[in-house]
Amino acid sequence: MNRPLAKPAGSPVIAVMAEIGRKARAASAVLATAGRAQKDRALLGMARAIRARAPDILAANAEDVAAAQAAGASAASVDRLILDDRRIEGMAAGIEAVTALPDPVGRVLAQWQRPNGLRFERVATPLGVIGVIYESRPNVTADAAALTLKSGNAVILRGGSDSFRSSTAIHAALMEGIREAGLPEGAVQIVPTRDRDAVGEMLKGLDGNIDVIVPRGGKGLVARVQTEARVPVFAHLDGNVHIYVHAPADLELAKTVVLNAKLRRTGVCGAVETLLVDRPLAESHMVPLVKMLLDAGCAVRGDEEVRKADARVTPVSKEDWDTEFLDAVIAAGVVDGLDAAIAHINRHGSHHTDAILTSDAAAAEKFLNEVDSAIVLHNASTQFADGGEFGFGAEIGIATGRMHARGPVGLEQLTTFKYRVRGEGQTRP
Amino acid sequence: MNRPLAKPAGSPVIAVMAEIGRKARAASAVLATAGRAQKDRALLGMARAIRARAPDILAANAEDVAAAQAAGASAASVDRLILDDRRIEGMAAGIEAVTALPDPVGRVLAQWQRPNGLRFERVATPLGVIGVIYESRPNVTADAAALTLKSGNAVILRGGSDSFRSSTAIHAALMEGIREAGLPEGAVQIVPTRDRDAVGEMLKGLDGNIDVIVPRGGKGLVARVQTEARVPVFAHLDGNVHIYVHAPADLELAKTVVLNAKLRRTGVCGAVETLLVDRPLAESHMVPLVKMLLDAGCAVRGDEEVRKADARVTPVSKEDWDTEFLDAVIAAGVVDGLDAAIAHINRHGSHHTDAILTSDAAAAEKFLNEVDSAIVLHNASTQFADGGEFGFGAEIGIATGRMHARGPVGLEQLTTFKYRVRGEGQTRP
Repeated sequence: MNRPLAKPAGSPVIAVMAEIGRKARAASAVLATAGRAQKDRALLGMARAIRARAPDILAANAEDVAAAQAAGASAASVDRLILDDRRIEGMAAGIEAVTALPDPVGRVLAQWQRPNGLRFERVATPLGVIGVIYESRPNVTADAAALTLKSGNAVILRGGSDSFRSSTAIHAALMEGIREAGLPEGAVQIVPTRDRDAVGEMLKGLDGNIDVIVPRGGKGLVARVQTEARVPVFAHLDGNVHIYVHAPADLELAKTVVLNAKLRRTGVCGAVETLLVDRPLAESHMVPLVKMLLDAGCAVRGDEEVRKADARVTPVSKEDWDTEFLDAVIAAGVVDGLDAAIAHINRHGSHHTDAILTSDAAAAEKFLNEVDSAIVLHNASTQFADGGEFGFGAEIGIATGRMHARGPVGLEQLTTFKYRVRGEGQTRP
Repeated sequence: MNRPLAKPAGSPVIAVMAEIGRKARAASAVLATAGRAQKDRALLGMARAIRARAPDILAANAEDVAAAQAAGASAASVDRLILDDRRIEGMAAGIEAVTALPDPVGRVLAQWQRPNGLRFERVATPLGVIGVIYESRPNVTADAAALTLKSGNAVILRGGSDSFRSSTAIHAALMEGIREAGLPEGAVQIVPTRDRDAVGEMLKGLDGNIDVIVPRGGKGLVARVQTEARVPVFAHLDGNVHIYVHAPADLELAKTVVLNAKLRRTGVCGAVETLLVDRPLAESHMVPLVKMLLDAGCAVRGDEEVRKADARVTPVSKEDWDTEFLDAVIAAGVVDGLDAAIAHINRHGSHHTDAILTSDAAAAEKFLNEVDSAIVLHNASTQFADGGEFGFGAEIGIATGRMHARGPVGLEQLTTFKYRVRGEGQTRP
């Protein structure tokens, strides 16, 4: 791609993005009051068109894949990029599943009456315009559009350069559903250029026409978005997840949960990265847990105490406590009780997901209250950190910020609220 | 105040502010789990100390007032600055009133169980550290500290230069309550310097140690904070509030509500600034409403139609539709029906507070749904835009952003949430 190093203020990409922002804002006003039936009709049309246009989408995808391979892309990144019939069907079924979810807009979140007779309602409304910036996985195009549409928001999609043709073909299918339902074209837009300046424009908020940015991709992308965005961001940079085993704890439960939390899938944000064990359990629990992990093919990096458990344990470094391995690696250490475990987690964790395994109910309550993370669990695997597992139906990501959305970001988290007040001519004294 | 134009990176104010941020963050962990009894004990101690130290506070305030008068401050700004026995008592009583409010922390906002037996709870937690930047009114020191403490947040207070001595004396009283209750000193801190760079440091977020900024003051302050802050801001810049009168509408109700909404107090953000009347009511309603306002001493700036109502009406300018007068002035115009009124308000308004007066219930519902403002009212005065009138007990301000807090920002809006998940060893398939 040939482009100059700096763009003049009136450069085409700036003008294109500004127009996309205006169209999205105008569409958001229509979507905000669109009923569930109309939104679901659009979603069903989107799913139908994804299936009907599968040949087009696969052909576009084949071009993307060929270009990526020619450019020497890694096998992992080609795997993220590639579409097949199963993945196409997954997109369509995913959109259909969103139609089954209740409409989050218009929910009365609270209502009350004041002594002067005024009746107050707090009611859920869409956020407005959501910018989604993603990388190679082209299916994000469909997933993000379905969730934002159902929650009454307009969306501006910016896919990765390497999946540009695939995402554009998917977007073309989505637009069939939008048109069939009579919704505005600005409801679901995709950035029509690979020009990287488009991302910079989105991060600046398109003159107030983007309300929130959701980055979907690797740490490089999330870090850039979090650093540069001038609008709120729903995301998490790290999922440095902990499990703390506190006496008394059932050993079999601990083994089952730790194995699942570490090795069910190592590349997900809910995978545990650090195992902490209460000192009285150093022999009884740490030793079998460490041997189990090693035997299952997980590297264990331990403190002095843990290294006594098995010769295969390597020394843990200072950095390991702060590292999200996203691999079959775990840091392990012995701590002096609950307060030390909580302090360790609040210091080294990423406020994402952390668990305590214990049969001491009071200790569990203290842990759930004092660990400052979006998700805190007692006696359950940290891999439940997922909107689907929460029962949200679907999620657009997991947020670790403290504002507005924390934890899995599902339909409800894509709404805000307003106050409706009804009276009979009341005036303020 | 003598200070160089630019500070070296290691300048004292940067180091002082960084330390304040660290102390606040450490205190916030203690406050997050402090029970209601301990927080209320601190609040009662704060109120008691405000009364006991009234002579110190009034002496400090007299110095501030003398300095302001010597510097040629306006009567209005001296009035905002000045304290007397009544205002001191108001601060103490205000703090006591906050003790009567329920603790917003720990509320279970939602709970559910999944088929696998996992029990989920969404529970309210404090936001963390709140920075409050205010101007001349020294009583904000006490008001803001009470609300942030009750909601389990640490606060960093930065008052105006002209009220520096008063705010510092009030803060010294507040600290008595903090100490009596055994809470950390970092819970309520005041910036100990008039150096303006302290504000810049707060807007940058003190290395992630401020979670939200609340500006309290004039538009210049709010605009600066909204433009420069790198952390979320709870505020509104404008309150360009509308009342729309739609046929059929009760004339007496309209007269009562419009008079109250415009003239009860003209300097508050809920005061109406634009009156729109449906064309069929141009004669029957606009004429008497305009005459009533003029007779009550309110200047009316009207469109061509409105100018026919009374010779005292002056022409409305294009800018007037976008202006928050905060004075006995109103813009008035005739519109062609509900959709035109909604379009006018969404275009010219500030998403703060808007009202419809009508006896047409369907029109009212459409207005409440489609006007994109934090507060929308039917048949009631816009001056109800206030946390106290909502029944929130108290407010730290009104927000027009879409994220997290909208409308009056009371105790509940100063909290976020986390998910507590309880299981019996569940693993994810």
